[in-house]
Amino acid sequence: MSLPLGFSDHPAGLLRVGPGFTLAGHSTNASPGFSGKKADGAAALAARAPVLSQLQEQLFAESRFGGKKSILLVLQAMDTAGKGGIVGHVVGSVDPQGIKLTAFKAPTAEEKAHDFLWRIRPAVPGPGMFGVFDRSHYEDVLIHRVHGWADEAELDRRYAAINGFEAELAAAGTTVVKVMLNLGRDEQLDRLSARLKDPTKYWKYSPTDLDERAFWPDYMDAYQKVFERTSTPNAPWYVVPADKKWYARLAVQEILIETLGSLNLQWPAGDFDVAHERARLKDA
Amino acid sequence: MSLPLGFSDHPAGLLRVGPGFTLAGHSTNASPGFSGKKADGAAALAARAPVLSQLQEQLFAESRFGGKKSILLVLQAMDTAGKGGIVGHVVGSVDPQGIKLTAFKAPTAEEKAHDFLWRIRPAVPGPGMFGVFDRSHYEDVLIHRVHGWADEAELDRRYAAINGFEAELAAAGTTVVKVMLNLGRDEQLDRLSARLKDPTKYWKYSPTDLDERAFWPDYMDAYQKVFERTSTPNAPWYVVPADKKWYARLAVQEILIETLGSLNLQWPAGDFDVAHERARLKDA
Repeated sequence: MSLPLGFSDHPAGLLRVGPGFTLAGHSTNASPGFSGKKADGAAALAARAPVLSQLQEQLFAESRFGGKKSILLVLQAMDTAGKGGIVGHVVGSVDPQGIKLTAFKAPTAEEKAHDFLWRIRPAVPGPGMFGVFDRSHYEDVLIHRVHGWADEAELDRRYAAINGFEAELAAAGTTVVKVMLNLGRDEQLDRLSARLKDPTKYWKYSPTDLDERAFWPDYMDAYQKVFERTSTPNAPWYVVPADKKWYARLAVQEILIETLGSLNLQWPAGDFDVAHERARLKDA
Repeated sequence: MSLPLGFSDHPAGLLRVGPGFTLAGHSTNASPGFSGKKADGAAALAARAPVLSQLQEQLFAESRFGGKKSILLVLQAMDTAGKGGIVGHVVGSVDPQGIKLTAFKAPTAEEKAHDFLWRIRPAVPGPGMFGVFDRSHYEDVLIHRVHGWADEAELDRRYAAINGFEAELAAAGTTVVKVMLNLGRDEQLDRLSARLKDPTKYWKYSPTDLDERAFWPDYMDAYQKVFERTSTPNAPWYVVPADKKWYARLAVQEILIETLGSLNLQWPAGDFDVAHERARLKDA
């Protein structure tokens, strides 16, 4: 596969979590594989959007003729890391008809009464769809670990349940791509401050963001354990430096392009006789 | 309200169905209110996208602080008229997080066992959301009338049920915008032919498209009756000439901008003490 525009190496390979990965060793401000600056990144994002868009259209088209493949992008991150920007600027460049987006908030009383995967399953993309989870079942091993809402035995059960669930998705044709946007603690402070300086951004601020910020090291430990326990060949994690929004968007776009590109998608031949239909059209 | 770029009059006013409207008298190839050509239309669409996008963000933001408003775009048209293009190029310019899109296909056995609005209700947008129906409850008074699947008394019941349903939506805060993309019969033939000439478009072609094409005059009659029975101040119909795809997209964009603009949306003030939160941030 040729190198994407402006990259000296494929970001998917550079950012994929492998054996021995340690989150602490990774810069949040770097732009691995990309030598350009912000303007170059924005230009590359725009230039590559049609590539992602066509791959999504092929995925969708295949499903109209029996194709079972789908893709699921799982986004996890600390507050302000830019999940919304990925949704708006990367996912937003493909046809909305092919997107199934679910934002998982704090669970409702009904959701809490069920096991943690209960509310996740109905959000899984059907054939041909590009699913996106803005937060996910990983909250149940992140915030739950940080605040002690689940003990070690229960967390062990959940890691195993997640791996089983994701293996099941893979077997059914859903390619799972898990992205952690790796934001710096100082950069988060700047972004929260910016929200409090601009009245058009107040609505994005919540006092609880600051409460959770106090648990930063615990969250990083919880993410590290997630990577150790749930990075599988079926459903790899990618840790994407997120201090530079433009880089994070570009990297996620390329990870999606590489993943969809590996599915060997084809335009469907159609299930009708083309010559016959052309003849019918003449009289229509 | 000032005139949108390139328009000599507001398309919403020009295209809204009023008393005495007759579909037969409307050109499918015109570009009412817009004096420019295709390139001008494409430039205007791009220039106005941020306006639509900000209005949608305000709608969404209000709902985070108790706002109840939402918008619902209902799209109806003959095959190939460009519903997908409206979704991709107009709706697609706003943040996917704020979109709730439902494409209504032929009903399932379970859906058929219920009254026709049963499958529609769960697709209604929640507070802050921009709902889109790609086909809708109007199929139950269009294809059903054309093929005689419902008799006149049943169709009467359905028109009344639709008006009651849409009045209920309006009362609950959902502004309904109904668009019929008005395609010419010859233009449809050209578009169907194009699909059969390009193997990357075969997947968009279905032999049943030609079957329905044979009922063209009956469909136009059914649309005329829909406009007469269901154009209400709560939920107006807009008939948008659709032979020029660029015009239809631009016109629908402006109709949405004018509709959202009329809702008097504001950025929420937030439900926290800004000064207190700024002080907390200093120690965070």
